[in-house]
Amino acid sequence: MRYKIVLEYDGSGFHGWQKQRSGCRTVQEEVERALSHLTADAAVTGSGRTDEGVHALGQVAHFDYDGGLDAATLMRALNHWLPEDICVKSCSAVPDTFDARKSARRKTYEYVMYTADLPSPLRRTRECYIGASADVRAMNEAAGLLKGTHDFSAFCRSGSSAKTFTRTIYDSEVREEGDRIIYRVTGNGFLYNMVRIISGALIRIGRNEKKAEDIGTALASGNRVMMPDIAPPQALYLAAVEYPDFPEQE
Amino acid sequence: MRYKIVLEYDGSGFHGWQKQRSGCRTVQEEVERALSHLTADAAVTGSGRTDEGVHALGQVAHFDYDGGLDAATLMRALNHWLPEDICVKSCSAVPDTFDARKSARRKTYEYVMYTADLPSPLRRTRECYIGASADVRAMNEAAGLLKGTHDFSAFCRSGSSAKTFTRTIYDSEVREEGDRIIYRVTGNGFLYNMVRIISGALIRIGRNEKKAEDIGTALASGNRVMMPDIAPPQALYLAAVEYPDFPEQE
Repeated sequence: MRYKIVLEYDGSGFHGWQKQRSGCRTVQEEVERALSHLTADAAVTGSGRTDEGVHALGQVAHFDYDGGLDAATLMRALNHWLPEDICVKSCSAVPDTFDARKSARRKTYEYVMYTADLPSPLRRTRECYIGASADVRAMNEAAGLLKGTHDFSAFCRSGSSAKTFTRTIYDSEVREEGDRIIYRVTGNGFLYNMVRIISGALIRIGRNEKKAEDIGTALASGNRVMMPDIAPPQALYLAAVEYPDFPEQE
Repeated sequence: MRYKIVLEYDGSGFHGWQKQRSGCRTVQEEVERALSHLTADAAVTGSGRTDEGVHALGQVAHFDYDGGLDAATLMRALNHWLPEDICVKSCSAVPDTFDARKSARRKTYEYVMYTADLPSPLRRTRECYIGASADVRAMNEAAGLLKGTHDFSAFCRSGSSAKTFTRTIYDSEVREEGDRIIYRVTGNGFLYNMVRIISGALIRIGRNEKKAEDIGTALASGNRVMMPDIAPPQALYLAAVEYPDFPEQE
């Protein structure tokens, strides 16, 4: 029987999602270790990687399990074995054709910034400080220019193994919540470091060091050099992964 | 010239405020190290200790400095040398009679709890999970019973070097903010672990494992055994320290 799980994790203590040969601590490895207490073949497939330091509120993964526990008990058992920086938020039986990576249709990320006179020690592990004030209207205007189907080569870190750089962005919006400024983006997929490179560009635009139109120019050029910044990982959250015939999970 | 500084810090990486012989990392030590770049005699006096893991939004300290920098420049210089988990939020020249510890008249602490179906990995370093729901009305009723001048022996960890256990509590309130439940308490001083022991009792009361009146009974008894829980440190914040002739600083 195949199970789908939705995971929250604090990325601070992990070298990203993906299992590594080097023995670095990764989320996938910890979930497989927890599952190995319940079944011999404890292979877990995620919807995709998250970078070192990036958090998740709604990462999705699947695994096969044929033991005697039902989904609710399975979830409790996994949470019992998982370290406190990972939590299974839901668990459900799915058809064998469900694949957390291949079946994923839409992913949503959030990048959380804040403005203040000084950077805050208590916020530094969860949000990105961008200065005393920011031009949120320009940031939102720039974010909107990314909507649609484009070649995102200008927003992909070199070294990517992507076969194509074309992605479709359904929503791309910057909003204010008190002194927080949140960039929320939904697409059918994202290139290596894409959301952090976009966020880096938005931060420049918020500081009036670049113009909103520059995002469109960069997009058309396909040239990474125009958008050199990569915003830091600790403010990035994989918020949700959506699947066909699956209502949004969290 | 004497200076007063207001500090924010993330307690996670510190063995509390107070300098220790053992060479553990402490906040006082880091502030003195930063100040030592600016003056030879870099002694810093805090308003009081904070326990290992406890955060501060408004810890206050003083030091003497006779170099050429004005208060604003001094603050920038300290922030330049301080690690990113400590920040000076304000700096002002004060009379020589000002003493961060002895002149303190009121301190305010906040203890931040939350309710949810499951504990959240992303909140665990800043807030305390107390279950799926809580009886906030009972918690607030219990908190109110602490107001006034009492012997707080029942809420002091053994090993305290306090000469008297009598303290005056001016405000003591539990409020809800979304799924967060915040205990805010202001008093003329607090005993060793006092706010965490009160918070531990409030959590029990919120779960209906104790009654609000039990707080009054414990207070009257002076017996620590009645309130054995100590709530974890990472949800406790020293919010503000107030002084005579000094309006609240942050």
